[in-house]
Amino acid sequence: MSAATEIQFYDIPSKTKSNAWSPNTWRIRYALNYKRLPYKTIWIEYPEIAPTCKKIGAPPSATKPDGSPYYSVPFIYDPKTRKAISDSIIIIQYLEKTYPSSPERSLIPSGTWALQLAFIDALFAPSVVFPLFQFAVPRSASMLHETSVEHYLEARRELFGGRTLAEVDPKGEDRVLEWKKVEKGFGVVNSWLKPEDRFVGGEQIIFVDFVLVSVLRWIREIWGEDSSEWRDVSSWNEGRWGNLVKDLEEYTTVL
Amino acid sequence: MSAATEIQFYDIPSKTKSNAWSPNTWRIRYALNYKRLPYKTIWIEYPEIAPTCKKIGAPPSATKPDGSPYYSVPFIYDPKTRKAISDSIIIIQYLEKTYPSSPERSLIPSGTWALQLAFIDALFAPSVVFPLFQFAVPRSASMLHETSVEHYLEARRELFGGRTLAEVDPKGEDRVLEWKKVEKGFGVVNSWLKPEDRFVGGEQIIFVDFVLVSVLRWIREIWGEDSSEWRDVSSWNEGRWGNLVKDLEEYTTVL
Repeated sequence: MSAATEIQFYDIPSKTKSNAWSPNTWRIRYALNYKRLPYKTIWIEYPEIAPTCKKIGAPPSATKPDGSPYYSVPFIYDPKTRKAISDSIIIIQYLEKTYPSSPERSLIPSGTWALQLAFIDALFAPSVVFPLFQFAVPRSASMLHETSVEHYLEARRELFGGRTLAEVDPKGEDRVLEWKKVEKGFGVVNSWLKPEDRFVGGEQIIFVDFVLVSVLRWIREIWGEDSSEWRDVSSWNEGRWGNLVKDLEEYTTVL
Repeated sequence: MSAATEIQFYDIPSKTKSNAWSPNTWRIRYALNYKRLPYKTIWIEYPEIAPTCKKIGAPPSATKPDGSPYYSVPFIYDPKTRKAISDSIIIIQYLEKTYPSSPERSLIPSGTWALQLAFIDALFAPSVVFPLFQFAVPRSASMLHETSVEHYLEARRELFGGRTLAEVDPKGEDRVLEWKKVEKGFGVVNSWLKPEDRFVGGEQIIFVDFVLVSVLRWIREIWGEDSSEWRDVSSWNEGRWGNLVKDLEEYTTVL
């Protein structure tokens, strides 16, 4: 496949070995790999996001409180259709519609789209995965290249409520309590699944599996595979989360 | 079908015309009607719930903060299998497993169960349907028979945080703001659906449609069909919510 027809997939680099780290872009990388679509990652730092989007015609993914457009990754440009698409939710719909898989490999099986969107809302709820952010955001910031840090944090100010990065990261007794919330949150996700379910949809891989596993990869990336934190997470709920990362490992090529 | 083989479906009566009002039991009544299962409602007041459950062997649906068992409706007794089942989530799984429908009429299509559970969590989240409760609980209490009121409120103390029923019900400017939250919450549900979706799963009716429509019926029951509140709700999001209630009206027989 010549470079001219490859999907251009925009992502933020980092100090990690593979460059890739963001759970928001990973969910689309998983999907591109799973669908075996030819693509090429284009690495851009945070300050380049808005100018690049404007250049290729990728729309903003949201509006800032002051009314100005907010541009973010992931966004893609598909030379075959000459379309630029932003926002993982819109990108996955575009990919499934433009490059449909067989029903058994569809990431959006018929009748599941509203359910998958609700799942994503439920997953990032305050009582579910949200408590992870206070741990993960300060550590993500330290994985970024200098030029990206300020932009990354700017978009996450709300989480901080005026606190510094060091203050956000829980310490001491607070750390124990907040980490317990993370465990409880994954317990909620576990309660949705049947013990025998490998994936959210049972045996078939669907888009929300990639959303979920991208959060798990993020945890592993931040603390490292041998950390006590990853040992915790990968052992919770009878090892379900460690197994999910392993089961989807074949779709993690960084192209 | 003789009375001896009918599913016994336990529900709380009220001052309403049909007796039925609880969104928690309505979701199962919809399912029983949709699946055309022979059943008979047994009306019991709140103080009778725990003794009746114990008598027929229906387990508690939760544990109270003090560690004691919490019994609640809906629960059913199925003379065919001699099983007593509590909790709408467990009842629907039992009904689908024991009396499976064709795939096109299954309320739990293959691979959707975890997604449906997540949908229910997302639906009742603080930013979605939860703001309705402050309006609906005081009005529900006034629809109940005297003997049930105290028990109904007991289980909903948390919502009140020490406030009286009259204090919970928003008034004046606060009412306008809180009603706006209800509208915004239904807007979130609307954002999960495609404009053309009649039901959450598109064309096929699934269990969460009955969960959602039971909340909508509750609103209509509380204020009445001609109220400005129901006119509001049924017109939000291009009339989607009014249409959903109408589209599922054929499954509302109270047996």
